[in-house]
Amino acid sequence: MLDEAIAPTHLNANLRKQFPGMWNLDGSPWRYLDTAATAQKPQAVIDATVRAMGVNYATVHRGVYARSAEMTLGFEAARRRVATFIGGREDEVVFTRGATEAINLVAQTWGVENLKAGDRILLSTLEHHSNIVPWQLLRERTGVAIDVCPLTADGCVDLEAAEAMLTPAHKLVALAHVSNVLGSVLDVKQAAELAHAVGAKLLVDGCQAAPRIKLDMAKLGCDFYVFSSHKLYGPTGIGALWARAEILDAMPPWHGGGAMIDKVTFERTTFASAPQRFEAGTPMIVEAIGLAAAVEWLEAIGLDVAHEHERGLAAKLREALGQRNDVTLFGPADSLGITSFALEGVHPHDLGTILDEEGVAIRAGHHCAQPLMEHLGVPATARASFGLYNDETDIEALLKGIERTRRIFAP
Amino acid sequence: MLDEAIAPTHLNANLRKQFPGMWNLDGSPWRYLDTAATAQKPQAVIDATVRAMGVNYATVHRGVYARSAEMTLGFEAARRRVATFIGGREDEVVFTRGATEAINLVAQTWGVENLKAGDRILLSTLEHHSNIVPWQLLRERTGVAIDVCPLTADGCVDLEAAEAMLTPAHKLVALAHVSNVLGSVLDVKQAAELAHAVGAKLLVDGCQAAPRIKLDMAKLGCDFYVFSSHKLYGPTGIGALWARAEILDAMPPWHGGGAMIDKVTFERTTFASAPQRFEAGTPMIVEAIGLAAAVEWLEAIGLDVAHEHERGLAAKLREALGQRNDVTLFGPADSLGITSFALEGVHPHDLGTILDEEGVAIRAGHHCAQPLMEHLGVPATARASFGLYNDETDIEALLKGIERTRRIFAP
Repeated sequence: MLDEAIAPTHLNANLRKQFPGMWNLDGSPWRYLDTAATAQKPQAVIDATVRAMGVNYATVHRGVYARSAEMTLGFEAARRRVATFIGGREDEVVFTRGATEAINLVAQTWGVENLKAGDRILLSTLEHHSNIVPWQLLRERTGVAIDVCPLTADGCVDLEAAEAMLTPAHKLVALAHVSNVLGSVLDVKQAAELAHAVGAKLLVDGCQAAPRIKLDMAKLGCDFYVFSSHKLYGPTGIGALWARAEILDAMPPWHGGGAMIDKVTFERTTFASAPQRFEAGTPMIVEAIGLAAAVEWLEAIGLDVAHEHERGLAAKLREALGQRNDVTLFGPADSLGITSFALEGVHPHDLGTILDEEGVAIRAGHHCAQPLMEHLGVPATARASFGLYNDETDIEALLKGIERTRRIFAP
Repeated sequence: MLDEAIAPTHLNANLRKQFPGMWNLDGSPWRYLDTAATAQKPQAVIDATVRAMGVNYATVHRGVYARSAEMTLGFEAARRRVATFIGGREDEVVFTRGATEAINLVAQTWGVENLKAGDRILLSTLEHHSNIVPWQLLRERTGVAIDVCPLTADGCVDLEAAEAMLTPAHKLVALAHVSNVLGSVLDVKQAAELAHAVGAKLLVDGCQAAPRIKLDMAKLGCDFYVFSSHKLYGPTGIGALWARAEILDAMPPWHGGGAMIDKVTFERTTFASAPQRFEAGTPMIVEAIGLAAAVEWLEAIGLDVAHEHERGLAAKLREALGQRNDVTLFGPADSLGITSFALEGVHPHDLGTILDEEGVAIRAGHHCAQPLMEHLGVPATARASFGLYNDETDIEALLKGIERTRRIFAP
């Protein structure tokens, strides 16, 4: 039995009906618990996509005809909507393919321009590969050094350790807002203060935070913030980089092409101002419209509701798993929407496969965080992660599946 | 009157009905003549997108549950479909955001690895900015020099001039297969022979060719080929780079992140083989499925039919405009699907605006080809470009609109 005292969700029980992806072909609910990998899409986002691909379709920024002008307005309104969603300015938002591309953009423009051999970057043990490998590629190109901040015993970035490690040689701190494996939440404000105290910039990987925490760039104090649309109930193929205007304005171009230029001759090309300077070629037009629809949908529910929902379901699952003596829980007690665990004597992949037969979808693997796996001393974890469409019945199905797995793998 | 002897199209007159974007809100046909900017999407592509975003949605390459495995199969089948479409191997196809990103990828990986000060790149006067600016950024980074091949009098890349210009210092020739302004077609096979004769590689920008010419990488002989999905009746946000396997395999990684790695530690990361090495992060899952649907749709019609259709409509328009003594035609007589022109005494933007009132959408501007505009001695051209949904009635509407414009701007 789950403890009913732990934060009940305030969501409409019919929310799942808005998601065509949350159902099996026989009409039964799919127990999808892999939202940290990618979120299902509400009908509102699918409908917006269909309109943008169909009756409203045209290119942006270039056409002299009305429908192109309207699509341009819609595209720039999407940028404004995303900016407002995170408490930033619209000229601070660059549309990218996703968070990974956004981090690579920062590394290959701001990083190449500002970092040199002798400079240092501080990451943490729990970072996703997308917040490790771009900096390693920058290390190869510039000779910058990488330091790794350890974690607290319960799997949070240890900001006391970070404070002790940071020196004036550090030019950048890059950390996840919410761990994609542990669900642990970074105190971004404090991290920003620590980084700024030594003159470093702070980049935050917000992939898991954007759908679960109300963001306000002004208050957070970071310098770069990145997230992906597809984890935010929006389309694949788009995400965003937010960077403080004075930083973004000073960043050199990255990709050359149409739309990012001012004037082209073979001798010399001048560039558009940010954010257009970083959006070469025909942009992700339909995806931007879809992302705006996702943000609108999420804001209508409310980020406070989403936060409480995701905290509550993770807490319920942790409590239930904590009652078993054959389960190891990873991450802090107050993890947000994401629960990693190990079932004694059962490889996570086997657990995932058996759960799939029960109609329960979890992730089993290294979660693109191999250094964290090494730290935890496991090759992989089982991970259940929640979205707004999930409820307690999904947890019950998971627990039932774990029980069946236990019987199959009985010692 | 149009000359009925010029290639009639063999298309089903009802083809337009498959395109929700080809109609005005009042149910009348929209005279969309800007397909060189972006193509409208057939219902089959929209339907595939809806399924991929809805009932079939899951991530790829990572999930242990069945739906993710199925989506992975679909995603890789899309890659195979694209490879077959262009006569290449599936391990030679990298999904990118579009052609622009594909060219930047080549410049920033193969280019940085293989080109140095003293080496030369040959472009042409008619290139799109996306095939100019990436090489200028590479010039800044490596000191490589850029040469510009002139055009023939009728607006084709002058391959005799290219032959005279090429030297062993040239390491790359980069040319458009079909000019986005003039509709002129490059003899890729000959260009490849000329490039290879001096030891250079050939990159071909196939944006305007892929929807209009049956491609066969083995026969064309080029080394890199790029195109965008959104100009091929497919989704925005995706395109492809094809590169000969031995070249692609040797290219260093570009973006770091998930999915492109083999093993990550903070000390040292090893990378996946191509094409995965170049696809960091969650890919454009839904877009790849949509692109495959677009290719399937186009192949069902047949590239020979598309070629004849696009050649025929351009010829009809050229013939009709050629009968006017107030119109200057740009580009060769056998232009493919794209007709640029000037109406005496009327700025292209004014023409475009008046045509829009008549429900006819053309492009007016520099078409992201400012050096070509300078060569033509005009600030902009009016451009009509055709897709499979167009027919002679669209040309008649355009001619009627030009006639009205003439009356408004009567000398």
